Amino acid sequence: MSFEITVLGCGSASPTSFRNHTSQVVKVQDRCFLIDCGEGTQIQLRKNKIRMQKIQAVFISHLHGDHYFGLPGLLSTFHLLGREKELDVFAPSDLLNILQSLFNASNTYLSYKLNFHPLNFKSPELLFEDKRVEVHSFPLRHSIDTCGFLVKEKIKTRKINRKAVDAFEVPVYELNKIKDGANYIKADGAIVENTKLTFDPEPSLSYAYCSDTMYYPALCDFIKDVDLLYHEATFANDCKVLAKQTKHSTAEQAALIAKKANVKMLMLGHYSARYTDLKLLLNEAKLIFENTVLADDGLNVLL
Amino acid sequence: MSFEITVLGCGSASPTSFRNHTSQVVKVQDRCFLIDCGEGTQIQLRKNKIRMQKIQAVFISHLHGDHYFGLPGLLSTFHLLGREKELDVFAPSDLLNILQSLFNASNTYLSYKLNFHPLNFKSPELLFEDKRVEVHSFPLRHSIDTCGFLVKEKIKTRKINRKAVDAFEVPVYELNKIKDGANYIKADGAIVENTKLTFDPEPSLSYAYCSDTMYYPALCDFIKDVDLLYHEATFANDCKVLAKQTKHSTAEQAALIAKKANVKMLMLGHYSARYTDLKLLLNEAKLIFENTVLADDGLNVLL
Repeated sequence: MSFEITVLGCGSASPTSFRNHTSQVVKVQDRCFLIDCGEGTQIQLRKNKIRMQKIQAVFISHLHGDHYFGLPGLLSTFHLLGREKELDVFAPSDLLNILQSLFNASNTYLSYKLNFHPLNFKSPELLFEDKRVEVHSFPLRHSIDTCGFLVKEKIKTRKINRKAVDAFEVPVYELNKIKDGANYIKADGAIVENTKLTFDPEPSLSYAYCSDTMYYPALCDFIKDVDLLYHEATFANDCKVLAKQTKHSTAEQAALIAKKANVKMLMLGHYSARYTDLKLLLNEAKLIFENTVLADDGLNVLL
Repeated sequence: MSFEITVLGCGSASPTSFRNHTSQVVKVQDRCFLIDCGEGTQIQLRKNKIRMQKIQAVFISHLHGDHYFGLPGLLSTFHLLGREKELDVFAPSDLLNILQSLFNASNTYLSYKLNFHPLNFKSPELLFEDKRVEVHSFPLRHSIDTCGFLVKEKIKTRKINRKAVDAFEVPVYELNKIKDGANYIKADGAIVENTKLTFDPEPSLSYAYCSDTMYYPALCDFIKDVDLLYHEATFANDCKVLAKQTKHSTAEQAALIAKKANVKMLMLGHYSARYTDLKLLLNEAKLIFENTVLADDGLNVLL
């Protein structure tokens, strides 16, 4: 089971012909989430050969258009494709009215149930949870209410030591309990310790998504030790003042957050259209946090 | 002064990776209009190297998303680029509320004045007029209120016959009146007929845009004799029943309209995603109306 992030767009508000607006697909443990949905996302999904109907939940960080103007079109396309599976949308509450007025205007009744969950911008919140995966929101600092998202695997089951299980003649129906950490009790009452029958589980991976935000060190509490941090880096140091004014971050500030939060890897994105060559941003970040990569439309990161 | 149509997108509601949603730029007599604005239009404008700020008016035919979901993003980009020039938007009245709720949600106050003009769907209407150009709307028949648009040049001024003007020693300040058809009265009171001083003007060109509509012969009254007719052709004859159900047209029906309206040239578009090879549609249309071309993303037609 993989944990895979696909960048559909890494540009910021003003579009270019080579960078789409923000959107990412996160596939984890066979779940498929869409985070933000800038204009053109449905075309990017097609181009990246991601099956639209696999998407089970959409998370919208905030209501600046470059982060959600692709959502109405995507929801319409789900409908046109005859989707029946429910869709969960986690987004700022105003989006519900906007969607309703759009669908009223086109006389559209969606073929599927859309479960709308308004975000809260005051404190971290568990948005989604199932047997294997959790998604949390946490507040960012931007010019309007904005959330980041943390996608994490739950602690995985222990791995069966096939040789040991065979040696102790453990019946198949015991295996799931043993994977969950139980000891094996033999017919004569003797106890075989779980650690003799299993290996430690694979590590549980995690991904944090922070766009858009000003430099906001308090967010490190929410994203501590993640395997990959995506942090906006709209500007290089040449526009530090502008970054502050517009409540965005520089690449260096993104790297400072990555370092402080002790993350394993940092991905920069949400670049201002003024930067055609992104090496400047990468270099400024790497001076602070070496394990930094640049997001790019179509980039796949496998954790 | 040219009359030029650029197709930015020619797909229908369900997008493909090779056809964008509907939008066209019409440049006429140095005016620049945008007709419909499907998702991704701003990126298409960039790719086709059309200067965004040249656009002075936008015409939205109806409120199905594939015809206007790119508008909020485009309006935002105008703002981000610091537009000051007013923009006229001609569209169904519901769009105004939609735009207002989108801009409220993002706390956006546009840098320019947006003049919103609600369309009427009952009768033809003159929407725009200046010295050289007119744009009219006319009702189509679709599943929701929909307009077509007619862009036409006014009758052009007569062309000066340089040799004759020199021979009669016409002073420069008389030329504009003569271009408008006046005779020249010499100092001795003798009249020189305008036809001796001028040639006939260039023909006035016209373009009609009809998307989306079911087969609707009554629309021929509005588009008679145009130089180019764009008519939707969502389906081929294999889906004639579906065309009727969804209130769209087949390529053959588009050609019947072209023939009946005595237009000079027909352009098909708004193709269903099911057709990858469009020859079928072209051939079916050509059987009825020979001078037919297929719209394609990026196609430029110079009238």
